[in-house]
Amino acid sequence: MQKTIGGLGEFALIRRVTSQFPRTDDVILGPGDDAAIVASPDGRTVATTDLLVEGRHFRREWSSARDVGHRAVAQNFADVVAMGARPTGLLIGFAAPADLPLAWAEEFTLGVRDECAIAGGAVVGGDMAGSDTLTIAITALGDLQGRAPVRRDGARPGDVVAYTGHLGLSAAGLALLTEGVDGPAACLDEHRRPSPPYASGPEAAHLGATAMLDVSDGLAQDLGHVCRGSEVGIDLDPALLAPEPALTEAVRILGGGAPRALAFMVSGGEDHALAATFPADTVLPDHWHRIGVVRAADPDDRYVTVAGKAPEQTGWDHFRQG
Amino acid sequence: MQKTIGGLGEFALIRRVTSQFPRTDDVILGPGDDAAIVASPDGRTVATTDLLVEGRHFRREWSSARDVGHRAVAQNFADVVAMGARPTGLLIGFAAPADLPLAWAEEFTLGVRDECAIAGGAVVGGDMAGSDTLTIAITALGDLQGRAPVRRDGARPGDVVAYTGHLGLSAAGLALLTEGVDGPAACLDEHRRPSPPYASGPEAAHLGATAMLDVSDGLAQDLGHVCRGSEVGIDLDPALLAPEPALTEAVRILGGGAPRALAFMVSGGEDHALAATFPADTVLPDHWHRIGVVRAADPDDRYVTVAGKAPEQTGWDHFRQG
Repeated sequence: MQKTIGGLGEFALIRRVTSQFPRTDDVILGPGDDAAIVASPDGRTVATTDLLVEGRHFRREWSSARDVGHRAVAQNFADVVAMGARPTGLLIGFAAPADLPLAWAEEFTLGVRDECAIAGGAVVGGDMAGSDTLTIAITALGDLQGRAPVRRDGARPGDVVAYTGHLGLSAAGLALLTEGVDGPAACLDEHRRPSPPYASGPEAAHLGATAMLDVSDGLAQDLGHVCRGSEVGIDLDPALLAPEPALTEAVRILGGGAPRALAFMVSGGEDHALAATFPADTVLPDHWHRIGVVRAADPDDRYVTVAGKAPEQTGWDHFRQG
Repeated sequence: MQKTIGGLGEFALIRRVTSQFPRTDDVILGPGDDAAIVASPDGRTVATTDLLVEGRHFRREWSSARDVGHRAVAQNFADVVAMGARPTGLLIGFAAPADLPLAWAEEFTLGVRDECAIAGGAVVGGDMAGSDTLTIAITALGDLQGRAPVRRDGARPGDVVAYTGHLGLSAAGLALLTEGVDGPAACLDEHRRPSPPYASGPEAAHLGATAMLDVSDGLAQDLGHVCRGSEVGIDLDPALLAPEPALTEAVRILGGGAPRALAFMVSGGEDHALAATFPADTVLPDHWHRIGVVRAADPDDRYVTVAGKAPEQTGWDHFRQG
């Protein structure tokens, strides 16, 4: 008979899970007391929280437990680095039915552990509860290392807009899964296990980024927050939004041609790329891709355009209807 | 027709909820960016997380939304002060069915707001998601203000054991609700809306507490963590465990007499009292009640006794069976 988390019991499961997590220098006091203690030498702590609910944010048939563990950590530490901060600590709330296979919980734990190692943060605490709905609540902490946080309200007309990481792969991967067709592993993997460019968050802060965010809901929608926060408009250049080969291949399978590839890049979410604005004279490393400019905008014009047009006039609304 | 959160929509609900939360001096950047920024002048951040799942941790028919809001905050900031820290920031994950009445979400928000005001912390961020199971994930942060954290492993033989706050009222309130009988408001209220003695956490640290925790699972069970962490035993004196009048009244209604009142105090959870150990010569303020002593103990004897006996020999196991 398959072992379940209910059969093992909460305290034994917590011990088994906790023993998987290595400590880093940031962990002053790890799991086991009323609360954890995390180093915050900057004197300010960056904090963000996210929920992952089965059936809404992941499906057990499409994502392995290990993938879900990776993703839960990635999407939270991506938010930390998008402020220009360094990941430090992570807290995990895990609510699950008693009949959840123990192997699922253990594989999830390994995904969390491995993504923490990639991001440079450590699990410092958590909670476990019974629930009819498998739900994962993650809170991530970070340290600014003396830098000013990169917010959404600092973009100025004339700044360049650039991104680093992947754009559109995750959405193309989801489309492949939804249609039940095989496709490039890079797209499927990015959907299951996004790979945020963690080091590029602090890097952008060093480079003088005026605004930054992680792309979770889609490039145009997320940059819209910068437009409203900074009281500017942003114009993206479709000629600069070059799809990666894997995205081109996915669109070849899915159909829709170049407009659909552009649509995935402009409106596809969950890649957790970093998008930022920089002063025009900033010398950007090659892995930051220039894709547009910040423009002055009246209050009723503070949104993202593609080649000067509202996105729905560029042909990629086909994707939305599709 | 009753308004629901699904009818309002996620972003409108977030705006409506967020506008309820006042900022404190600890809030460097509040909700609305990739992450919040909270002051942590000490250079160390205390962090703890808890899940509240409907049907497991609360019932809508027994607790109002406002009560649940109060309790969600109280149980987390109680963990923060139990380290000797001052509450600073709070993050809330809120997963709910679309048909949840909007009024429930709004009342919950008011409970969160008001308990934050009592504790001295501020809501700095959160996340909202759809789910078949109403689930609340809270993460609380705190600042040690230069003090050493009060952990579970510092108790020494000869220390006095003391508590402040309430003991047994919440469990008696739950018993009243379970049996469907009316009883003292103090017990029912404490179950619905615990009132941790927030200021007494930092106070205990100042007084030189050698170990401390918040009583969430029951005094004996929780002090057992101190016994194992500190490699000691603890003997509680039943003569010093004087029930509050409301608890005596609840037991008069419920039956069981003085042994049951003692049982509620020793094994009842969720009052979120603070229990601590202090050097024997510590001059304790009146609101800290001495209830026992720390004793040297062999590895197989590191647990809590009542009048020198294992708790199940003192008569209060009647409660466990009841």
